[in-house]
Amino acid sequence: MNKIVVVGAVAGGATVASQIRRLDQESEIVVFEKDRDMSFANCALPYYLGNVVDSRDKVLEATPEAFYDSKNIIVKTYHEVTSINDDSQTITVYDYVNNTSFEEHYDTLILSPGCSANSLNLNSPIAFTLRNMEDTDAIEAFIEQHQVKKALVVGTGYIGLEILDNLYERGIVPTLIHRSTHINKLMDQDMNQSIIDEMDKRHITYRFNEEITKVDGNEVYFSSGNVEAFDLIIEGVGVKPNSGFIKSSSITLDNKGYIPVNDQFQTNVPNIYALGDIITSRYRHVDLTAHVPLAWGAHRGASIIAEQLAGNPKVKFKGFLGSNIVKFFDYTFASVGVSPQELEHFDYRIVEANQGEHAGYYPGNKKLHLRVYFDKSNRRIIRAAAVGEKGVDKRIDILSMAMMQKLTIDELTEFEVAYAPPYSRPKDIINMIGYKARNK
Amino acid sequence: MNKIVVVGAVAGGATVASQIRRLDQESEIVVFEKDRDMSFANCALPYYLGNVVDSRDKVLEATPEAFYDSKNIIVKTYHEVTSINDDSQTITVYDYVNNTSFEEHYDTLILSPGCSANSLNLNSPIAFTLRNMEDTDAIEAFIEQHQVKKALVVGTGYIGLEILDNLYERGIVPTLIHRSTHINKLMDQDMNQSIIDEMDKRHITYRFNEEITKVDGNEVYFSSGNVEAFDLIIEGVGVKPNSGFIKSSSITLDNKGYIPVNDQFQTNVPNIYALGDIITSRYRHVDLTAHVPLAWGAHRGASIIAEQLAGNPKVKFKGFLGSNIVKFFDYTFASVGVSPQELEHFDYRIVEANQGEHAGYYPGNKKLHLRVYFDKSNRRIIRAAAVGEKGVDKRIDILSMAMMQKLTIDELTEFEVAYAPPYSRPKDIINMIGYKARNK
Repeated sequence: MNKIVVVGAVAGGATVASQIRRLDQESEIVVFEKDRDMSFANCALPYYLGNVVDSRDKVLEATPEAFYDSKNIIVKTYHEVTSINDDSQTITVYDYVNNTSFEEHYDTLILSPGCSANSLNLNSPIAFTLRNMEDTDAIEAFIEQHQVKKALVVGTGYIGLEILDNLYERGIVPTLIHRSTHINKLMDQDMNQSIIDEMDKRHITYRFNEEITKVDGNEVYFSSGNVEAFDLIIEGVGVKPNSGFIKSSSITLDNKGYIPVNDQFQTNVPNIYALGDIITSRYRHVDLTAHVPLAWGAHRGASIIAEQLAGNPKVKFKGFLGSNIVKFFDYTFASVGVSPQELEHFDYRIVEANQGEHAGYYPGNKKLHLRVYFDKSNRRIIRAAAVGEKGVDKRIDILSMAMMQKLTIDELTEFEVAYAPPYSRPKDIINMIGYKARNK
Repeated sequence: MNKIVVVGAVAGGATVASQIRRLDQESEIVVFEKDRDMSFANCALPYYLGNVVDSRDKVLEATPEAFYDSKNIIVKTYHEVTSINDDSQTITVYDYVNNTSFEEHYDTLILSPGCSANSLNLNSPIAFTLRNMEDTDAIEAFIEQHQVKKALVVGTGYIGLEILDNLYERGIVPTLIHRSTHINKLMDQDMNQSIIDEMDKRHITYRFNEEITKVDGNEVYFSSGNVEAFDLIIEGVGVKPNSGFIKSSSITLDNKGYIPVNDQFQTNVPNIYALGDIITSRYRHVDLTAHVPLAWGAHRGASIIAEQLAGNPKVKFKGFLGSNIVKFFDYTFASVGVSPQELEHFDYRIVEANQGEHAGYYPGNKKLHLRVYFDKSNRRIIRAAAVGEKGVDKRIDILSMAMMQKLTIDELTEFEVAYAPPYSRPKDIINMIGYKARNK
């Protein structure tokens, strides 16, 4: 019997196993997960800690038992794949429950090991990272047990911002530090001013160009010379790929340890696929490598791998657009396209508008700042970023659909918005960007 | 000197005059408006009556004085164009202030006369139609003077629905009647159930297959035999084109009295353009005549006519998609593409989903019902309709952008949504429609 082995049972791994089973009732499917839980909703974790998500069951989406009963998929948690021998088509698995190691054969191998949180190695019982449900449970237990009132959040990526927002809403007083002034780095830096404003409005302390030098009990020593007591530290200082076990194989890794895949999510070894945060791929709208470690890509990869294995080779991945979004208190920050760091590869121009999200006379109107970058040579949109209290997600999603079709900046005049006063304007901000581009 | 004459000074007329002036500082521009006011926000009128829009100034966007001072455009209100002589390039204008008639020469004539409200001719002082600011002022004065507590709304088009919503929110008890069971006709009939539910929830009385037979003082007699007293009747029973004055000219009208225009908004007489509610054009995504009398089209037409007159013939209109949207209490109803009545021209299939608008565990999640129609022969999307309390406008706008590019139903799987729990799902409902289409 054909045997499909999946490494990792979170978003990418659990979804690809399910998608394969939809199309293939025959093959044996086995999933190995090194940690305690399978298929939890990563993106829910900050909200769970903020008590915004009220039920643990809503975060833990599946169990090995349920997966086996409903889908005939074997999921083994606390089982870490430690090496791959692609000549013999076997993997070595370490079983943490029985403390034994064994070899397992595969016909097809699918890698979705994800990333691990970087740690500041503070060697302190009050310091935590947040990457999975185990981390979440540990933080939750610590908050309850120690009646945490004051927390230090390190880092201004999505985890840092979402945790800060959620701890504050839960009634814990948060302080934010970041080692540079370069915050929320998928967003244009000048468009991050609302992050500062939202913290100021709530009298939240933040310091940039600040690092922890030492933690002694509850006393935290900072590079600035500050010393302050905290009940809890949460580190959101980036991630590293879980690709150590791949190094002994013939699978190509890039210089950061990620796996380049082709438009079928194949690695350089044809019967070994990869998906989720571990892969790099291409952008769809421009000719550039893309690393977009977000949920949409994991789900899309799962679907495409399943189609490939089911013998539908026509369903291929056409590349990423890099859509991303984060809520920070009342504001939304979103962008699509190449990152600010990748703009250097292009000869581009900018068009922007800062105007009411819907009809000016209708209540609840909020300013929306939308900036669109286009390539000077072909006038195609290469990036868009938006900030505001309302309508940000809508505009970035519309532009994602536009960029999927390689639209030029000028064609934005032609977008036919659904207009009524509560929703938009007869010339939507998307249209305005197109009209404003006429003279550029 | 080149002389441009515009007929009508509301959305289409005022905007086209402004747009022309942006690109052409030389020509004389004269606008004739038969009614009292220029450039009011039509779409704001129901909200103004609901006291949702708090200031009259926000609805009246410009005055002839301001237009002349800032743009050097002459606007003459209470001036009705009564005939066109396209051989001599003159129009006849009736001046209601001085009760005189005069001829006016034009080099270019632009027609934006709009439509008038149909009337039930009830011959009753409590019955009103709502089409412009004069109507709105009259209704507002009547409500105040007679302390209106109970109103009858006739018709379930956008005016009927928005007036009902707004009168209720203002504290007036509304009753709704409609002459058939075919309500809110741009929406799929089964998707209008939420209109009924929203009224039931608020104990609002409604009767379909019901008409007024007579009004005597405050007593309203109905075709059902009901007799009931009302303080106010608002009729939202459709519109008719203001094209009587065109009939004596060489300009072609369709059998309903609308003006077909080409992709430059030219009528069959090359130096006579038309825009706004008076025109018919083509759909962009399918080969069919389109009549989309909404604000976006008026603004788009204004821009394109201005570009044509400025000598930029490349900027042409590629057709309508028919985007439309209405709020009714907590619900939004929107669609894009051909109307339900026009579906008969196609051999189509339907894919639909009814699921949470954003991540299930995140608070405030609401069900969203999205239905997409595609042409069986080429699998292109021809229509989409959505109903729900949240995210309806976003999904219809995304699909409008998709249909602008003639996307197939299958390509919706490739849409890269900006995902975080408050906004969407890793597989957005748009993606789900694409995936569900695989087996159709």
